[in-house]
Amino acid sequence: MPLDLNEKRNLTMLVDFYELTMSNAYLVGGMGDRVAVFDMFFRKIPDRGGFAIFAGLEQLISYLRAMKFTDEDIEFLRSKKIFSEQFLSYLRGFKFACDVWAFAEGTPVFPGEPMVVVRGPVIQAQLIETMVLLSINHQSLIATKAGRIARAAQGLPVMEFGSRRAQGYDAAIYGARAAYIGGCASTSCTLAGREFGIPAVGTMAHSWVQLFDSEYQAFETYAKLYPDDCTLLVDTYNVLASGIPNAIKIFDQVLAPMGRRAKAVRIDSGDLAYLSKGARGMLDAAGYPDVKIVVTGALDEYTIRDLLQQGAKVDAFGVGERLITSKSEPVFGGVYKLVASLNERGEYTPKIKLSESVEKITTPGFKKAYRFYSKESGKAIADYITHHDEVIDESRPITLFDPNAIWKRKRISNFTAKELLQPIFAGGCCIYAPPTLEQVRSYCQEQTRLLWDEVKRFERPHRYYVDLSQKLWDTKQRMLLESGQWSEKGGGK
Amino acid sequence: MPLDLNEKRNLTMLVDFYELTMSNAYLVGGMGDRVAVFDMFFRKIPDRGGFAIFAGLEQLISYLRAMKFTDEDIEFLRSKKIFSEQFLSYLRGFKFACDVWAFAEGTPVFPGEPMVVVRGPVIQAQLIETMVLLSINHQSLIATKAGRIARAAQGLPVMEFGSRRAQGYDAAIYGARAAYIGGCASTSCTLAGREFGIPAVGTMAHSWVQLFDSEYQAFETYAKLYPDDCTLLVDTYNVLASGIPNAIKIFDQVLAPMGRRAKAVRIDSGDLAYLSKGARGMLDAAGYPDVKIVVTGALDEYTIRDLLQQGAKVDAFGVGERLITSKSEPVFGGVYKLVASLNERGEYTPKIKLSESVEKITTPGFKKAYRFYSKESGKAIADYITHHDEVIDESRPITLFDPNAIWKRKRISNFTAKELLQPIFAGGCCIYAPPTLEQVRSYCQEQTRLLWDEVKRFERPHRYYVDLSQKLWDTKQRMLLESGQWSEKGGGK
Repeated sequence: MPLDLNEKRNLTMLVDFYELTMSNAYLVGGMGDRVAVFDMFFRKIPDRGGFAIFAGLEQLISYLRAMKFTDEDIEFLRSKKIFSEQFLSYLRGFKFACDVWAFAEGTPVFPGEPMVVVRGPVIQAQLIETMVLLSINHQSLIATKAGRIARAAQGLPVMEFGSRRAQGYDAAIYGARAAYIGGCASTSCTLAGREFGIPAVGTMAHSWVQLFDSEYQAFETYAKLYPDDCTLLVDTYNVLASGIPNAIKIFDQVLAPMGRRAKAVRIDSGDLAYLSKGARGMLDAAGYPDVKIVVTGALDEYTIRDLLQQGAKVDAFGVGERLITSKSEPVFGGVYKLVASLNERGEYTPKIKLSESVEKITTPGFKKAYRFYSKESGKAIADYITHHDEVIDESRPITLFDPNAIWKRKRISNFTAKELLQPIFAGGCCIYAPPTLEQVRSYCQEQTRLLWDEVKRFERPHRYYVDLSQKLWDTKQRMLLESGQWSEKGGGK
Repeated sequence: MPLDLNEKRNLTMLVDFYELTMSNAYLVGGMGDRVAVFDMFFRKIPDRGGFAIFAGLEQLISYLRAMKFTDEDIEFLRSKKIFSEQFLSYLRGFKFACDVWAFAEGTPVFPGEPMVVVRGPVIQAQLIETMVLLSINHQSLIATKAGRIARAAQGLPVMEFGSRRAQGYDAAIYGARAAYIGGCASTSCTLAGREFGIPAVGTMAHSWVQLFDSEYQAFETYAKLYPDDCTLLVDTYNVLASGIPNAIKIFDQVLAPMGRRAKAVRIDSGDLAYLSKGARGMLDAAGYPDVKIVVTGALDEYTIRDLLQQGAKVDAFGVGERLITSKSEPVFGGVYKLVASLNERGEYTPKIKLSESVEKITTPGFKKAYRFYSKESGKAIADYITHHDEVIDESRPITLFDPNAIWKRKRISNFTAKELLQPIFAGGCCIYAPPTLEQVRSYCQEQTRLLWDEVKRFERPHRYYVDLSQKLWDTKQRMLLESGQWSEKGGGK
């Protein structure tokens, strides 16, 4: 596993305070060892898209491996005067002991699926809630947005340029990582480059051009220094009247005599469709059809789509704040819910969280998740959530049904079933060798390719099926009926 | 200065790659020592508010003090094969040498003001751009949002509960810090509590209630363990039919015999206005008028304002994702622009960045910023930006004018002038003793109090005056005229 910044600082105490009060109470109440099962899942796809991308697992693993309460932490908690010495001593000797399963990073994911499952002593499973959510919510948000933007660019490279507008240092660093998983080609964040091996790129800012007495002089100095990597920013004064003409002069007068070709020009303002076409025409006419045009400035998936539709002559996009904060929808609403606990007889008692809104009712039970692929098209057909002890027989047809509209049925056969939850920790030991970032990125591309295009539309995509096994559906219905509560729950008047 | 997580990891390489290519080019081009002046300012107040709150300075200071390129960093940069050995050796021995001025943390700020000014060798002043922006943009965003939410709560405490939905670990930790500066009373983030001394709070989640066989049993166990800090979450099943009745039973049967009073109940779902009134009535009737009602769930300044207007019986608010990501506007658009450079004669040559949109034109020059307060009302009247060598004579009237509508004039007298930019670094040495976080928070409250209420409206606030001195305005106009470019700049067709 690559060097991880997380391992250099101790984030163990990045827990919501109520996890500590509950864990203390579980321990003192003699329930600390009771085995509980929690699911992490999300309910709504950002930007009303058709799927999200699961990311952030590697950082979660690194946190769980390094969990350690220091003397300073214990002293701080003791000063709160509400924790038992028994609990403080437990924390002092804390050893992670849970089992964890999770989807592979880069997997396209859908609402309601258990993407991370934690089973273990409730005192621990409860304690890690915040970091499970924080790690996965952040990177999944950015990977999902990056995926949308990369798809809009139709194969043209997208560079992540958002560090300065990120919500904190980690948002820049791990945001760059997530953006790469989602499909970006490179980042401006040097630290993310060093840390994760993501190509780090960048050339010049307006300040470079401004500091010189003339744009020509600024370009000349730069071209002489970077003849092999010469990208000129052409919009400090006027793109078509000054920037491009000066750039062409430099290509002719500085680079050509050195036997070099320029790489690109960058346009950061103005109407990018109009300016890129004008610039392309001038560059081509001057004998530089190979010099690429990079555009930046307030881009997102919609602007990129529109620019390409309007025939903008663009070879690469740099995307900043709208990617690194997922500006149009800056929250990935993953939740972490108790779904089962082990009773005295060694059986799992399913747990359900009721709610007036149907979408907020949880699916109870310790579960497995499968993705079915058609053997004919290779495409993903549906995801299928089962009890943890159900086995899929690929040789027999399965009838899928919409859990919220059970008359909508579909019989499938000739499919392969892939288990989505992989074992990550067993008894607190990490038993998973994370793939490299390149592998995660490729996996994401490959798995996204296996979704039908209908699911990938930006607006009103086709809803991908996430169905429950008959047995799991029965459990849920039984619990809803037995609760006798749900029709009167909530703010009902 | 308190222990800072930043000092435990090396963030030196958190720079946009183009800062390195430019710095290398400055050095190799013999311009590395040329003294440049950069301003950090922003253009637009988030959420169309009347002011923002400046925050993040302490973390920026800690970064600048600790800047150090390691052998590993140098090796990584060398592997890029575009940097000179001269530059790599310069970085290896890097010693920060700039002067830095900044506003005090907690200061209400307005568009166009130089909130951070950096003067020094261009090779360095350029290099720190990303961290200046990233540090200030993030925390100013959250402090500003927290200020709005705290004002909506009209003095009732607001608790920051957003860690799980933050954009990365730092967004949770430093977001909690910024939220506290902006006016939150506490945080759920334990690490932020330990790190910054912010009160860390929390009690129980739905999972606590779910794990027991009954709500009563869950409450009973909790109350026995935390008789002095008993807040019960009453919405797992049904607030008025189950949660509140069970809570009252616990207060009567468990706490009363121990001679204790409960602290609060928390409602996390349903219609909070309706439920809080119902709960208040039941609690009062049962003899618990002192038990507080805390509400949480998708809150922001607008919902809080509406709840209070509708007479919701609420004593405290917990606010999560809409605060910690500033969901309605998740980007604070601070920029860092070259405004002057020192010429051979030791004079400052002002630099201007032109743009087709008037708001995007920078104000050139090495500057100072003042805030004028009326001696009569004590209120802030206007901010006033001047050349760095202008002196304000408080004994004489000053005529202010709107820099974009110079016929709008106002003559002021009987005022005090406060310089807003404080020296932070001199020649690379930190000469500033940051106030404590409590002091920053109080300063923010006090300075916000000194703004007219008209500036504090959530919607369509009065625009606070940020005016230029005559001399500075003349400089800007002269440069605009001399440029001869601005009328044809950009994407004009």
